Amino acid sequence: MFLTRTEYDRGVNTFSPEGRLFQVEYAIEAIKLGSTAIGLKTKEGVVLAVEKRITSPLLEPSSVEKIMEIDDHIGCAMSGLIADARTLVEHARVETQNHRFSYGEPMTVESTTQALCDLALRFGEGDEESMSRPFGVSLLIAGHDENGPSLYYTDPSGTFWQCNAKAIGSGSEGADSSLQEQYNKDITLQEAETIALSILRQVMEEKVTPNNVDIAKVAPTYHLYTPSEVEGVINRL
Amino acid sequence: MFLTRTEYDRGVNTFSPEGRLFQVEYAIEAIKLGSTAIGLKTKEGVVLAVEKRITSPLLEPSSVEKIMEIDDHIGCAMSGLIADARTLVEHARVETQNHRFSYGEPMTVESTTQALCDLALRFGEGDEESMSRPFGVSLLIAGHDENGPSLYYTDPSGTFWQCNAKAIGSGSEGADSSLQEQYNKDITLQEAETIALSILRQVMEEKVTPNNVDIAKVAPTYHLYTPSEVEGVINRL
Amino acid sequence: MFLTRTEYDRGVNTFSPEGRLFQVEYAIEAIKLGSTAIGLKTKEGVVLAVEKRITSPLLEPSSVEKIMEIDDHIGCAMSGLIADARTLVEHARVETQNHRFSYGEPMTVESTTQALCDLALRFGEGDEESMSRPFGVSLLIAGHDENGPSLYYTDPSGTFWQCNAKAIGSGSEGADSSLQEQYNKDITLQEAETIALSILRQVMEEKVTPNNVDIAKVAPTYHLYTPSEVEGVINRL
Amino acid sequence: MFLTRTEYDRGVNTFSPEGRLFQVEYAIEAIKLGSTAIGLKTKEGVVLAVEKRITSPLLEPSSVEKIMEIDDHIGCAMSGLIADARTLVEHARVETQNHRFSYGEPMTVESTTQALCDLALRFGEGDEESMSRPFGVSLLIAGHDENGPSLYYTDPSGTFWQCNAKAIGSGSEGADSSLQEQYNKDITLQEAETIALSILRQVMEEKVTPNNVDIAKVAPTYHLYTPSEVEGVINRL
Amino acid sequence: MFLTRTEYDRGVNTFSPEGRLFQVEYAIEAIKLGSTAIGLKTKEGVVLAVEKRITSPLLEPSSVEKIMEIDDHIGCAMSGLIADARTLVEHARVETQNHRFSYGEPMTVESTTQALCDLALRFGEGDEESMSRPFGVSLLIAGHDENGPSLYYTDPSGTFWQCNAKAIGSGSEGADSSLQEQYNKDITLQEAETIALSILRQVMEEKVTPNNVDIAKVAPTYHLYTPSEVEGVINRL
Amino acid sequence: MFLTRTEYDRGVNTFSPEGRLFQVEYAIEAIKLGSTAIGLKTKEGVVLAVEKRITSPLLEPSSVEKIMEIDDHIGCAMSGLIADARTLVEHARVETQNHRFSYGEPMTVESTTQALCDLALRFGEGDEESMSRPFGVSLLIAGHDENGPSLYYTDPSGTFWQCNAKAIGSGSEGADSSLQEQYNKDITLQEAETIALSILRQVMEEKVTPNNVDIAKVAPTYHLYTPSEVEGVINRL
Amino acid sequence: MFLTRTEYDRGVNTFSPEGRLFQVEYAIEAIKLGSTAIGLKTKEGVVLAVEKRITSPLLEPSSVEKIMEIDDHIGCAMSGLIADARTLVEHARVETQNHRFSYGEPMTVESTTQALCDLALRFGEGDEESMSRPFGVSLLIAGHDENGPSLYYTDPSGTFWQCNAKAIGSGSEGADSSLQEQYNKDITLQEAETIALSILRQVMEEKVTPNNVDIAKVAPTYHLYTPSEVEGVINRL
Repeated sequence: MFLTRTEYDRGVNTFSPEGRLFQVEYAIEAIKLGSTAIGLKTKEGVVLAVEKRITSPLLEPSSVEKIMEIDDHIGCAMSGLIADARTLVEHARVETQNHRFSYGEPMTVESTTQALCDLALRFGEGDEESMSRPFGVSLLIAGHDENGPSLYYTDPSGTFWQCNAKAIGSGSEGADSSLQEQYNKDITLQEAETIALSILRQVMEEKVTPNNVDIAKVAPTYHLYTPSEVEGVINRL
Repeated sequence: MFLTRTEYDRGVNTFSPEGRLFQVEYAIEAIKLGSTAIGLKTKEGVVLAVEKRITSPLLEPSSVEKIMEIDDHIGCAMSGLIADARTLVEHARVETQNHRFSYGEPMTVESTTQALCDLALRFGEGDEESMSRPFGVSLLIAGHDENGPSLYYTDPSGTFWQCNAKAIGSGSEGADSSLQEQYNKDITLQEAETIALSILRQVMEEKVTPNNVDIAKVAPTYHLYTPSEVEGVINRL
Repeated sequence: MFLTRTEYDRGVNTFSPEGRLFQVEYAIEAIKLGSTAIGLKTKEGVVLAVEKRITSPLLEPSSVEKIMEIDDHIGCAMSGLIADARTLVEHARVETQNHRFSYGEPMTVESTTQALCDLALRFGEGDEESMSRPFGVSLLIAGHDENGPSLYYTDPSGTFWQCNAKAIGSGSEGADSSLQEQYNKDITLQEAETIALSILRQVMEEKVTPNNVDIAKVAPTYHLYTPSEVEGVINRL
Repeated sequence: MFLTRTEYDRGVNTFSPEGRLFQVEYAIEAIKLGSTAIGLKTKEGVVLAVEKRITSPLLEPSSVEKIMEIDDHIGCAMSGLIADARTLVEHARVETQNHRFSYGEPMTVESTTQALCDLALRFGEGDEESMSRPFGVSLLIAGHDENGPSLYYTDPSGTFWQCNAKAIGSGSEGADSSLQEQYNKDITLQEAETIALSILRQVMEEKVTPNNVDIAKVAPTYHLYTPSEVEGVINRL
Repeated sequence: MFLTRTEYDRGVNTFSPEGRLFQVEYAIEAIKLGSTAIGLKTKEGVVLAVEKRITSPLLEPSSVEKIMEIDDHIGCAMSGLIADARTLVEHARVETQNHRFSYGEPMTVESTTQALCDLALRFGEGDEESMSRPFGVSLLIAGHDENGPSLYYTDPSGTFWQCNAKAIGSGSEGADSSLQEQYNKDITLQEAETIALSILRQVMEEKVTPNNVDIAKVAPTYHLYTPSEVEGVINRL
Repeated sequence: MFLTRTEYDRGVNTFSPEGRLFQVEYAIEAIKLGSTAIGLKTKEGVVLAVEKRITSPLLEPSSVEKIMEIDDHIGCAMSGLIADARTLVEHARVETQNHRFSYGEPMTVESTTQALCDLALRFGEGDEESMSRPFGVSLLIAGHDENGPSLYYTDPSGTFWQCNAKAIGSGSEGADSSLQEQYNKDITLQEAETIALSILRQVMEEKVTPNNVDIAKVAPTYHLYTPSEVEGVINRL
Repeated sequence: MFLTRTEYDRGVNTFSPEGRLFQVEYAIEAIKLGSTAIGLKTKEGVVLAVEKRITSPLLEPSSVEKIMEIDDHIGCAMSGLIADARTLVEHARVETQNHRFSYGEPMTVESTTQALCDLALRFGEGDEESMSRPFGVSLLIAGHDENGPSLYYTDPSGTFWQCNAKAIGSGSEGADSSLQEQYNKDITLQEAETIALSILRQVMEEKVTPNNVDIAKVAPTYHLYTPSEVEGVINRL
């Protein structure tokens, strides 16, 4: 008699008989509960847009940070456990600063993404920096380096992919379909803003306002939109 | 057959199949058993008010400290396990002192809050400073720095939010509703005191006296109200 | 289906679904099996009194130490596991000696109590000094410093409170009620001795003799009563 | 009564009564879920070809790397968990660079393979570099050194074999049969390309395009085919 | 539903719901299986007497050591696991030698006993010197220092008591009753020898001979009786 | 009621009630699944012969190494997990090289065998070099030193024996019987080759060819037979 | 309800409710499966004799070592797991060499035995030198020092006894009875040889030959008998 699949997932980093790693799959579930984030790559740069869940009118909207700067030329949007994301971003910030200090030039976007994923992969290993469980967060990493603009998507298993456009979080399924319909490589940055926000509007349960979404671009440097800039994009919808 | 949810929480830091971290959720339960604390931000500064449960007339009320100073410009109110809170506060005090010593200037309120949450996040990691379980405490951190007054709220997962007003502890649900009704950004510090205490009075089971509540403000430096100052606020109700 | 509460306490330091720490609660049970100890604060100083269970006439009564000196100006009474208490007291003695050596002045009673509780809180953490389980002991810490006399009560969770009067151990419930009736802040030290011993007499199953109780005071220095001094207090009852 | 076989595999690195290591066998299952990869050795050099599963049209096909360079004279194709493969490849890159630096000559293909397998073998040992579970990946390592071209195949147990031709991944069973029919030692490199791609076409569910396969050769240096070079091979089918 | 008490004792150092430490209680059972040992304090010095179980006539009786010297002025009798007792005695010997070396004077009997118990208390803590289980041994420690003769009794919990007379081991219950009847503080050393041996004779199943008992005294220095000296005491019975 | 024997083997290195170590016994099962290897000692030197299971015609037979050189004067044949054997052989190579370097002379065959077994014995001890489970491999170690030729046999328990002739692996039972019939101390090296191969032929399911067997000798230095030398032995059968 | 005794032995070093250490008792079972060994002390020196189980005629009898030299003046016979015994003997050899080097004189037999047992006692403690389970071996240690000849017997608990004569292993029960009948302190060394071998003959299932027994003496230096010397003793039977 075989044990049922759920009896294998107690060791955080063990294969089930079918060759699966359940703790990673459960961490991916944590992201499906998270707020939606969207990224689009254009020739001019990359746009990131996120839904901010303001659970109480007493919360300071600007303190709910779901898009963060990693370096001048790299930013990221997140979905899942915010405290986990902060640890990964902090790690990436140190890596990019060290790289600038050692080599006198910015770290490439791919190397930065790889450094983040190396940390994410080693959960359960008892290293000083790693966690005892997978990081319960997905990231959309937008950057601009000598190869031009690029957009990466990471998941809790420590794997990453380069994308032209990608959505993560609770609304990612519908958002990804919409992206496939509306995205092409020749859209302008402004069009990307509009697409991102119109798709976010579909998956959000409430009206879009400068308070409950954030937008940022890396084109070629990181810039988080001010409320009035967000307002401007909303008005274009 | 799936194991029931309660069978997943034995590893202190493991995801359940739905992507949840039960030990963190259980620690949050510990806070729901705690005494109520309230914070309000005004343009003049931040007010903190807490209920003190004096279980015996033989206890020295002033030794039941639920509001503590972190640095000249930062204080915090707590709900949950007091011994856990003391460890976090002690950690923050060392961090702020180190910062003053290294940089010759006070640490910002956000950096202080981040330092506290970094420690809280790493439970179960076997580090020298971290705990083997989540810290069973929520904090309201009030401070004043170059960005003016600010109020942060932390929970056992190591996440934090900036708020205009917030209640924690067993009476937090009702208190939060009252805050949403009564709070606006333009209230004076004195009005904040009155609102805080009138809401505390609603959620407390006994009559409010200088013995069973504490009030403090950071405006712009930390000050714990004397019994007669508390008396004064009570009289204004 | 929820697991029953007793299935959560195998990890020494894990929250139950209701947010409780069972190993700490079980350690508190160990104290309920212990002998009774009583402390009272007066303006002249603090009085401690304990029941000594002399299980055999061949035991040397003076070697059953349940009141111990920590420093010139601090003593403590204990209930629970004596070997655990000795470890805590030894730790406190080192701390107070180090403080005298480093700063040339006695450690305050609150700092000493905090140092004791820091050690108690960190059970299960694998530190060099901490235990793998909670310390199964409660202490009444009596002291006298620049703030005058003070009395602290600690429990196995590493929490402490300042009290005017407090009883611990198997007879603590009845003793606490009696204290609330008989204690006021203006009693003399001599009255405190009488109250302490008369309450001990109520909760002890055998006749009070200089052999089966110990009395000490900190007023302002620690003094353990000689058998004839104890005899004197007994005669006043 | 014997325990059933599945009750032995909870310790990641323990023998079952029949002398089996289940975690290794489960990791091999992970590879059976992976995309197919094929390698063929010719006298001119070694050819590697892989299926790339492009799950979304928004993914950048070139970022789905399933063939990677280890050193000028060594490349590898992978099937299974990509993040695990990256760790092994990164380890091998460091080893080959160190070897060049220490000895002023390239590392042999066998030594490089052995170094990879040493790391794979030590899962569950708690070393700094090793994993707590087997690496869920198989590699086809193609190289060219003083002994001419060579092709190695590694599995999660840390064992390796030298092959003339080999397929791994979900389609490996059918692909291996086809290889036995079509392969002989005297085929040219161009014939090897054609065989590899025609077999991949059989096991893939979709039409072969330059977007969903990658081809590389080591002859005698590593070269990853450009989309137009892949196109050329497709056109020869 | 509560778990039954026996389900709590698997963690070597965990409280049961009633506040008990089962591994310590089980270790105490190990002592109840041990041979009987008796100690008596007189004004001239302390007498120790033990039963030696010579399981085979081929054993060298003198090599069954159940009374051992710790220092010139301290000896001890043991009951329980002999190998455990040797570890404790060896630890005490090092401590007393270190004390002589550092302070130029003998260690007091109480400090020596405390040092032994500190080691015993820390079982399960993973220290270099401590054991992973309680020490399965009780000791009667006889000594003579500036306070005159003294007798201490230790148990596996790391607790110790000062006694006038005490029996340990399988016959301790009956022996303790006899001691209470026959002992008073004014007996001579010679009377103590006679009482000790007559009580041992009652609890032993075989005839007392110089081969199956050992006697030692600390008066004021440690002396293990020769067979003929033991013979002399036997003849006085 | 006793637990059944299979319930004791979860701790990798624990005795069962009958005094058995099951993980070692299970590792021995792993060897019973392995390919057969045979060793014979003659006055001229030692002969080793192994069956090579070539599971696919695409495998390079010469890369299936089941006889390996340890030093000029020592070689070994293996049965069981090949990756485990490689670790042991690599360890032995380092030991023999260190010995040559330190003492300027070759290590004796017995010391080399002892060094291998020391590593094998310490499984489950958490040492840097040891494994967390027994090594699943048996070795036949052939050597020639100042004491002449010698043949050692090791098993997963870390025990070793000196033999005149020995078979290991799945066909070892039948092969050992045949060896007892055909072996005597006075056979020539050539006769030993013939005996080894004729016995291998009996236990192998397929026809013996230079591709599916390997032969080596240490006489007095290690030499692995070329395919044509193997062919020559086959022709003599 | 109590758990049955067998449920307590999974922790290698834990007391059962009756105060027993099961892993030690199970290790003692391992010795009851071992070959028989006998030791006798005479005034001229000590004789050791062991049964050697030669399971195959192809084994080299001289390589089955069950009597080993520790130092010039100490040897030992063993029963149980040979690899464990080798570890203990190697430890003792290092200790005696260190002692000679540090003090310029041989280590006493008792100190050597104590050093062996210290290592045996600390199983399960995670020390670098200790094992994670008890050593599954008993030793008869024969030596000659300033106190003349001596014979010690050790068991897996780390306890040791001095004996005049002793048998260990599967035939120890019958052999011990015979020793009690035939031994007295005044036998000559030659008589001891004859007694040892005649008793071994009784418990062995096959005819005694120089191939299946070993004899050694320490008189006053260690000497392992040559086959012809063994033959001589056999002929005297």
